[in-house]
Amino acid sequence: MKVRVILTDLDGTLTEDRGSYLLNLEAIEALRKAEAKGIKVALVSGNSYPVLRGLYNYLGFSGGVVAENGCLVYYQGNIFPVCTPLPKVLVEEFRDKFKLKESWQNEYRRYDFGFTPPVITDDMRKWAEEKGVSIQSSGYALHISGRPGGKGAGVKKLLNVLGVKSEDVAAIGDSATDIEMLEIAGVRVAVANADENLKRVANFTLKLKSGDGVKEFIDSLTRE
Amino acid sequence: MKVRVILTDLDGTLTEDRGSYLLNLEAIEALRKAEAKGIKVALVSGNSYPVLRGLYNYLGFSGGVVAENGCLVYYQGNIFPVCTPLPKVLVEEFRDKFKLKESWQNEYRRYDFGFTPPVITDDMRKWAEEKGVSIQSSGYALHISGRPGGKGAGVKKLLNVLGVKSEDVAAIGDSATDIEMLEIAGVRVAVANADENLKRVANFTLKLKSGDGVKEFIDSLTRE
Repeated sequence: MKVRVILTDLDGTLTEDRGSYLLNLEAIEALRKAEAKGIKVALVSGNSYPVLRGLYNYLGFSGGVVAENGCLVYYQGNIFPVCTPLPKVLVEEFRDKFKLKESWQNEYRRYDFGFTPPVITDDMRKWAEEKGVSIQSSGYALHISGRPGGKGAGVKKLLNVLGVKSEDVAAIGDSATDIEMLEIAGVRVAVANADENLKRVANFTLKLKSGDGVKEFIDSLTRE
Repeated sequence: MKVRVILTDLDGTLTEDRGSYLLNLEAIEALRKAEAKGIKVALVSGNSYPVLRGLYNYLGFSGGVVAENGCLVYYQGNIFPVCTPLPKVLVEEFRDKFKLKESWQNEYRRYDFGFTPPVITDDMRKWAEEKGVSIQSSGYALHISGRPGGKGAGVKKLLNVLGVKSEDVAAIGDSATDIEMLEIAGVRVAVANADENLKRVANFTLKLKSGDGVKEFIDSLTRE
């Protein structure tokens, strides 16, 4: 088996730590080395499309972008919508009902919307069930989105567009929102500080946390 | 004189070269060292706000963002509009009249819009004059914007918000769109591969190009 595509989460995975927004530059350098060896790197995140596309361009990756927590896929100039758009009235109702703060990126979203604090209550799950929307938390933000929602659908679409089989794909993440992404990949990797339920899905858990873990993984992969 | 704020352009300045989108990671590391020494770093660019705000957050800068080629300023949770919004009909008229391609970021802009190829003709200048809009080229994109337009107005607003005097500010860039920014700063720096008309405004021109030049400058600054 040869890894042809690396799917990586952003927040808590390419950063210095979970909860940090600081990109780990050594992880970025390692991923660029992987790109130089012909392995495509894709960003798979709950962030909005313009934020991820900007990072993707400037970091020098080529494997595409899965934005809005799986709801929007970008590859080589084309955008592929994956979820049902979420009406603005539902976003506002959710925000007001549960007294949440909207992410500054919501203005640039169409399918998946972010809120803080990133904590899901039973009342929220009940509301989401009634309204037919998906709900998840990345630890950075609480996400509600149109169906199907979640990284799994976006990753499937991206692999389809790339024409790559699951067994040639490695996925790396830190939180429960990455479970669906890992489940699709042949090589399933969790950083040292990942959620326990992600570690259970992973083939292996790294020694190092977040971005240092990504560097650890890429170094082992490109040394082979 | 002590530099308290560094204003830096993005495209052609923090990248590997002019025309490249690849961030120079050593330049980013140098700027983070400057931040660690208490010097605030601000991004001043023709890019859209979400793209720049994303980079700003993940790169770990604290001096604010001047987006849309000077038309929008962000600092600590607040957005300050600087230019007159540009009606969508004018954007479409300009695009169609001169057979240009719109930037993918135009969807996320309000005041300043980008097009390729990044070449200004006399007919374009005449059109812009008649319509009362500003026109500039960064070498990456052709920009039209509501008045005043240009990085100067945005930088003045940011320094005002920061409460910092021009003499405590260093500015670094590569293209003619950076002239207004350099003119406001006490320390005016051009990378080695900068436009000749930017070098004429600069106090000094670096030995190295683009991101390597930024690292050269920051190293000299933080060694003092």
